[in-house]
Amino acid sequence: MGVDVGGTTTVAGVVARDGDVVADATAPTERLNPGRALDGVVALIAQVGRQVGRRASAIGIGVPGPVDARRGRVGEPVTHVPALAGRALGAELGRRCGLPVFVDNDVNALALGELMFGAGRGARSLVVLAAGTGVGAGIVLDGRLVRGAAGFGGELGHTPVKFDGPRCFCGGRGCLAIYASGRGIAEAARARTAGDAGSRMLVAAGGDPMAITAAMVFRAAGEGDPVAQSVIDETCRALGAAIGTVVNGLNPDVVVITGGVARSLAPLEARILAAARDHAFAPALAATRVVIVPGDKRAGVRGAAALALYEMRERTAKRRRASS
Amino acid sequence: MGVDVGGTTTVAGVVARDGDVVADATAPTERLNPGRALDGVVALIAQVGRQVGRRASAIGIGVPGPVDARRGRVGEPVTHVPALAGRALGAELGRRCGLPVFVDNDVNALALGELMFGAGRGARSLVVLAAGTGVGAGIVLDGRLVRGAAGFGGELGHTPVKFDGPRCFCGGRGCLAIYASGRGIAEAARARTAGDAGSRMLVAAGGDPMAITAAMVFRAAGEGDPVAQSVIDETCRALGAAIGTVVNGLNPDVVVITGGVARSLAPLEARILAAARDHAFAPALAATRVVIVPGDKRAGVRGAAALALYEMRERTAKRRRASS
Repeated sequence: MGVDVGGTTTVAGVVARDGDVVADATAPTERLNPGRALDGVVALIAQVGRQVGRRASAIGIGVPGPVDARRGRVGEPVTHVPALAGRALGAELGRRCGLPVFVDNDVNALALGELMFGAGRGARSLVVLAAGTGVGAGIVLDGRLVRGAAGFGGELGHTPVKFDGPRCFCGGRGCLAIYASGRGIAEAARARTAGDAGSRMLVAAGGDPMAITAAMVFRAAGEGDPVAQSVIDETCRALGAAIGTVVNGLNPDVVVITGGVARSLAPLEARILAAARDHAFAPALAATRVVIVPGDKRAGVRGAAALALYEMRERTAKRRRASS
Repeated sequence: MGVDVGGTTTVAGVVARDGDVVADATAPTERLNPGRALDGVVALIAQVGRQVGRRASAIGIGVPGPVDARRGRVGEPVTHVPALAGRALGAELGRRCGLPVFVDNDVNALALGELMFGAGRGARSLVVLAAGTGVGAGIVLDGRLVRGAAGFGGELGHTPVKFDGPRCFCGGRGCLAIYASGRGIAEAARARTAGDAGSRMLVAAGGDPMAITAAMVFRAAGEGDPVAQSVIDETCRALGAAIGTVVNGLNPDVVVITGGVARSLAPLEARILAAARDHAFAPALAATRVVIVPGDKRAGVRGAAALALYEMRERTAKRRRASS
C-alpha cells in the first residue's frame, strides 16, 4: 500500500506488484493538528483496506520535504504539513497498523515508482525532477536511493543553475526551483508585468498580479506574449542546465521530468532538450533517456508503494549479508 | 601498484595497504606514438618493481578523460594523451605484465585514493573536484564509484553553474571549468586585461597576454588588482555553487577540492565556503565536510593503487554474490 501525503490532499492506494493501483481513496490533509493528522492517515489506510478486502504486506508513505528515512522520521521544518514535523511517522503508524511502515520524501518515492513501474522500468539508475509548486528531485543510482549524509540527497531542485542569480525561496541563490517551479514562474511573471496594465497575464488574472499563475504564464507565452516568453525561455534553459548537471555528473539511464508543471512543459520538450544539448556532453546525453511525464494523481501512491517494496527488499538483502 | 598517466609525465609507484608510497618512478608521457606509449608504461612498471624487489598483486591506472572502466578501454578522444585513445589498456597491459590491470579516469582514481587513504578515510561517500588545467571530478556514493551509463559519471567539472554563461572549451556553456580551471582563469584574465598595458598581470607576463597564467591571476588578486579580483571572485562563487549542487544533490560525507589550482585556492577557503553557504541547505552542508587538499605528486599514484584495491574487492564481492 502507498500513501501520498500532499500539501492539500492525502491519497492512499493499494498497488499490485505490476504497479496497477487497484483501489484508492482521498481525504484532505490535516495540516496543523498533530493528533488528527495521524488519525486521518490511519482512517484512510483502513478505508482502502476495506475496499480491496485484503491486508497489505507493507505500507510506504511519501511526504513533502526532508525525511530521515532510516528512522522513519519526518524532518523539520515541513512547511507543507507542519502537523507531521519531527514525527516518527514510521514507528507510530507501524504500531497502529500492525504492519511495516516506511517513510521517505515524496519525490524519492516517485523516483522508485518510475524505476519499478514507470518510465525507468528495467533501468539501474534514474533521476526524477518533479516541478510543481516547488521542484523536488529523487536520485536512484545502481538500484539504490541516494539519501545523503543528512537525508538531503537528491534535492536537485535546489541545484544552482546561475551562481549570481536571484535569491530562491529556500534561501539559496539561482536555484533551478526559481526558474522551473510553479511558484518561481508565477513570481517572475508578476515582477516583470508590474505596472503593465495591458499585459495578457494581468488581464487573465483579473488585474491582480498576485492572481497570476504559472499556467497563465505558459498560456500567454504560447500566445506570443514577449514577457511570458522571456520567463518560459529561462525555464527551458534552466531545466536544460539541470539536465546537463545530471547527465555529466551522474549519467543515469533515465531522467524523468514530472510533477504538476510537466503538463505545460511537455509541448516544450524540443526546446528543453536543445538547452540540455547546450550543456551536456553529447555521448553522455546520448546514453541517457530524457522523458517528460505529465504527473498523474496516482503516481504518488504508486511511488509510495514502490518505496515499501524497495525497503522490504533492502531488509532482505541486509539480512542475507549479515548471515553470510 | 598505481600508475598515473598525466598529460606530460607518467608516475608509477608501489603503494602499501596504508596508502604509503614506498617507491616510485617518473618518465615523460609518450603522447603520440601508440606503440611506444605502452612500452613506456611497461618499462616504468618494471623499473618500480625492481626498486622494491617484489611483485605487486594488481595494477591500477589513472588516465585523463573518459574511460570505459568495465572494458578497461580508454575513451576517445583523449586530448591529453592521443596515443592511448581507443586502446584496451587493461587487457593489453594485463597480458604484458601478467597481473590484473584496472583502468579508470584519473580523478575517479583520485576519489578512491582520498576515500581509502586521504581526507575521506572512514567515509562512505565522497566527491572530489580536481581543478588543474581543466576540472575533473569523481563521485563515490555508499562506497561505490559512480561511473554512469556511458562512463561519464562524475564529470562535475562540467556542471553548468550559469545557464547563460560563456561557452566552455568542452563545447558546453557556463561550466564550472570555465571559472575554476587554470585554463579558464587565465583566459578570463586575458580577455579582461586586453588593451590595458598597465595591468599587473600583463606586466608579470612580460606584456604577452598569452603568457598570463592562473598563478599570476591569483597573485595579482592577492595584491589588490581589481581585474584579477573580479576573475577570482567568480572562481570562488562558481566553486560555491558547485559545492551547493553536490551538497544538495548528493549530500556526501566529504567534498575534497584538490588539483594543481588547489594550492592557490587554499587561502581562499573562507570565501569559497561562504559562497557554498549561499547555495547549500544549511543542515545538508553541516553534514558534509568540505576540505581543500593542495595536490601532491603522489596523490595520483595513491589513487591509481586505490583503484586496483577497489576493483579487486568488487571482483570478490561479485563472486560471492554469484555463488550465494
